[in-house]
Amino acid sequence: MSRIAKTPQPPYYSVIFISERTEGDNGYEKMADKMVELASQQKGFLGVESVRDETGLGITVSYWDSLEAIKNWKEDSTHKVAQEKGKTDWYKNFALRVCKVERDSFS
Amino acid sequence: MSRIAKTPQPPYYSVIFISERTEGDNGYEKMADKMVELASQQKGFLGVESVRDETGLGITVSYWDSLEAIKNWKEDSTHKVAQEKGKTDWYKNFALRVCKVERDSFS
Repeated sequence: MSRIAKTPQPPYYSVIFISERTEGDNGYEKMADKMVELASQQKGFLGVESVRDETGLGITVSYWDSLEAIKNWKEDSTHKVAQEKGKTDWYKNFALRVCKVERDSFS
Repeated sequence: MSRIAKTPQPPYYSVIFISERTEGDNGYEKMADKMVELASQQKGFLGVESVRDETGLGITVSYWDSLEAIKNWKEDSTHKVAQEKGKTDWYKNFALRVCKVERDSFS
């Protein structure tokens, strides 16, 4: 199966999350899988694309039908626990950007 | 040096490019390096973040100060050659999304 998200016609929204991991797993992989599962059950979730290379740099892009859906996911209680662990244990650095997707093309 | 782009205050624009590579290099790495160098010399370029994993899935996000800058880069003649080679030789599949970055946060 393709790991490219099948998103609807624009406009829709994206969250670009880029992060540099700390050394060791420290419970990260299990939580990352759980977060993808949980996010995909949220109202307004459209898809997710995720890549991490061997140096520990990763980009995850999630797609949503509204800013409200993104806000609700940000405020999810289990997600909030993961966000805290991310800051303290899992990421050296990260950047998060909330975007409106205006046009797209596929091949 | 951090591989996370130092972007200015929003709003600005992003191009999310996700791709699945074909087998073998086929001149890809050299052209990919050239495209990053060339893009970074374009008017309105703000930064780029790029990750590809061992399965060949990659996400590259470039940042721009306007839709016009993105259009100019799309129409660049050397870039157009690379785009064609991408379709015929380098990518099994890809998706490209042009977005307006509305807010961001860093740690």
